[in-house]
Amino acid sequence: MTIQDRAKNARKASLTLAALNGDSKNRALDAMAEGLNSRKQEIIEANREDCRRSKEEDIPAPLLKRLKFEENKITQVIEGILSLKNLPEPVGQTQLSTELDTGLELYRVSCPIGVVGIIFESRPDALVQISSLCLKSGNAVLLKGGSEAALTNRILSEIINESTIKAGLPEGWIQLVETREDVNEMFKLSESIDLLIPRGSNAFVKYIMENSSIPVLGHSAGICHIYLHEDADPEKVIPVLIDSKTQYVAACNTVETLLVHRDVASFLPEIQKAMEEKAVELCGCDRTRKIIDISAAQEIDWATEYVDYKLSIKIVDSMDEAIDHINSYGSGHTDSILTEDNDRAGRFMSQVDAACVFWNCSTRFSDGFRFGFGAEIGISTSKIHARGPVGLDGLLIYKYKMLGQGQTAAMYAEKERSFSHKPLNKDCPL
Amino acid sequence: MTIQDRAKNARKASLTLAALNGDSKNRALDAMAEGLNSRKQEIIEANREDCRRSKEEDIPAPLLKRLKFEENKITQVIEGILSLKNLPEPVGQTQLSTELDTGLELYRVSCPIGVVGIIFESRPDALVQISSLCLKSGNAVLLKGGSEAALTNRILSEIINESTIKAGLPEGWIQLVETREDVNEMFKLSESIDLLIPRGSNAFVKYIMENSSIPVLGHSAGICHIYLHEDADPEKVIPVLIDSKTQYVAACNTVETLLVHRDVASFLPEIQKAMEEKAVELCGCDRTRKIIDISAAQEIDWATEYVDYKLSIKIVDSMDEAIDHINSYGSGHTDSILTEDNDRAGRFMSQVDAACVFWNCSTRFSDGFRFGFGAEIGISTSKIHARGPVGLDGLLIYKYKMLGQGQTAAMYAEKERSFSHKPLNKDCPL
Repeated sequence: MTIQDRAKNARKASLTLAALNGDSKNRALDAMAEGLNSRKQEIIEANREDCRRSKEEDIPAPLLKRLKFEENKITQVIEGILSLKNLPEPVGQTQLSTELDTGLELYRVSCPIGVVGIIFESRPDALVQISSLCLKSGNAVLLKGGSEAALTNRILSEIINESTIKAGLPEGWIQLVETREDVNEMFKLSESIDLLIPRGSNAFVKYIMENSSIPVLGHSAGICHIYLHEDADPEKVIPVLIDSKTQYVAACNTVETLLVHRDVASFLPEIQKAMEEKAVELCGCDRTRKIIDISAAQEIDWATEYVDYKLSIKIVDSMDEAIDHINSYGSGHTDSILTEDNDRAGRFMSQVDAACVFWNCSTRFSDGFRFGFGAEIGISTSKIHARGPVGLDGLLIYKYKMLGQGQTAAMYAEKERSFSHKPLNKDCPL
Repeated sequence: MTIQDRAKNARKASLTLAALNGDSKNRALDAMAEGLNSRKQEIIEANREDCRRSKEEDIPAPLLKRLKFEENKITQVIEGILSLKNLPEPVGQTQLSTELDTGLELYRVSCPIGVVGIIFESRPDALVQISSLCLKSGNAVLLKGGSEAALTNRILSEIINESTIKAGLPEGWIQLVETREDVNEMFKLSESIDLLIPRGSNAFVKYIMENSSIPVLGHSAGICHIYLHEDADPEKVIPVLIDSKTQYVAACNTVETLLVHRDVASFLPEIQKAMEEKAVELCGCDRTRKIIDISAAQEIDWATEYVDYKLSIKIVDSMDEAIDHINSYGSGHTDSILTEDNDRAGRFMSQVDAACVFWNCSTRFSDGFRFGFGAEIGISTSKIHARGPVGLDGLLIYKYKMLGQGQTAAMYAEKERSFSHKPLNKDCPL
């Protein structure tokens, strides 16, 4: 079957999925968990073969580590599926209810987006996590995983497909896309696919954003900043900085540039010492280099997401200069200020144009689980739909349901009747 | 100045605008109203010149009518500006508040999207309405109006620009784009422009969706349906049908296809009579044509937005067939069912994939003013961000503000502390 036909099937399945109630979806989640549990051995064997082949192909060690999918990881993803069951049913929630007139009621009700295309890298647990999130939110999904995990992904999607269809889900609701050609075709299918969620490298996300007319939820870069204001509490500076840079250096919410107010530039040697203890390489502006002996930052450094043990440092004359720098070079992901002044923190958080603006804490908190969303679809630097860490909400939109008794627009245009527009404060009865 | 530089200026202005409080924006709305009022005569003269030129160029009469912008219309747009003032301040609303841990608070707060590009057709009142909505929501705006209204748009934007900047708004927050070349360039400026809102013809909207990587809010078609079920109340059928088709035939929420359950096909002669009285041309499927003498509908008719006195009719065997038809040929705009059965209406509204799904009322209700939104940005058939009639909300997104006391992610990763994730139910203090 062509990818076009497969996407059409997903569209068709999505319409059935959208009308399923919470119990039906939870039963399918149970079946998914049960299927994975009973066919554990097949998964482990497929994954061993993927690992063996990838080792032969000399893929980097961190990638190999993420590829590995053994008993304990399978147990973890099964626990994840079961915990999703306990989240409140996301579909059919009334968000707005208005009486337009007696007997003419308007409701805004949450519903699934429809068909989602997700492209993820080597971790096979992502496949299970994503499918279960799509199921819970009532979306059909086309999945493309990393080629290293080809066999693991194939058996996982086969198990999920079989077990959930047996539990009553419509055929075609989950489909694996395996070739690069199919993925490229997928980007063109704006009639069948409503949203793309790429979880790969930044360059890849950017490529998709530029080459598809389908909306994209993702982040093309995570250039995060910390601004150290003159009145920052010295006790907080080093712990927050070290955490933001080194707690997990490969993450998108890691700090890449430190902006230091000139009046606390004397703090720089202590920062240098702490960073060097953690093997963080520093580069800085000319003024910084007059105080600590580090390499010179180039223009490109301010616009670089290192995702590595490296930090650029710049001295600024004012918070306004820091905000300008962040709004010019940042990627709108996460930026944090260290200050003991409420008003100043408030102004920083209003004027910095980023998904997450923090006061006196690590940039690393920018994460769906830490935010308490229960599950994370991804982090978005888009300015529409969903921004920052995105939970199950990001897979939902709404529809307007209107319940009438034969009313016409002419009745109101001709002033025979008039609108009341009273809030109803009740759930949609249908 | 190039359009690239102008867009960059708009971006810069948007950052200032985002941090303005409600009072400052309301003062600027007052200044805008005052400016338009005191320079009324200049506007009328510019508009007369536009009308004179357009008449010479033989533009169609309805277009000429929409172009006309005299005293009473100016008074109306000024009233519109002043009524916007009374809407609650949309920016800075707390949507979510969570205590992650003692002294670590997370808030989700509404904020403007940033820079919006709006392309609208001949009506000059659209320029004023759009600018005031952007101002109220704190967005910078690049505006492109119809060339027929060139002089009117120029004087209007000049007045709005001068009066609001005098009232404290940042330079560049509103800019008129005049050439077709500049508009085409604008579609490429995804670094500076966050959202495009085209209010022109469907073909044009489709062109933009396919040719810009900037997200688009709009509708590329309004193929709306009414499904007449066997148990529909006969009293409601003709009024709702006539209203949906003829109350304002040029609107996107006008019905284009009527689906009739076979068991009420006997109703067709009465429908034919009522439609012919309103000069509505009918075409239908073979089964329909065995009952009433009308022309044959072609495959293309089911996928056509007539926006004219024309209606296609199809007989179906079941509601499921009607739903399939709607989901295959519809544009996800507005579809209505006529039935006296609650459960059936509920199932129709769940399974039809459209922004607006109505029960026993006219499709013409699909409109921001009728919905009680106070103002309408446009109608969206997109599946993300905003769907259906879009009010001021559609120009807003949110940011996450986190207020801490020096916390690090490591504290929680190493179980030194743990997350409470308690709802705070309070407004963000900063």
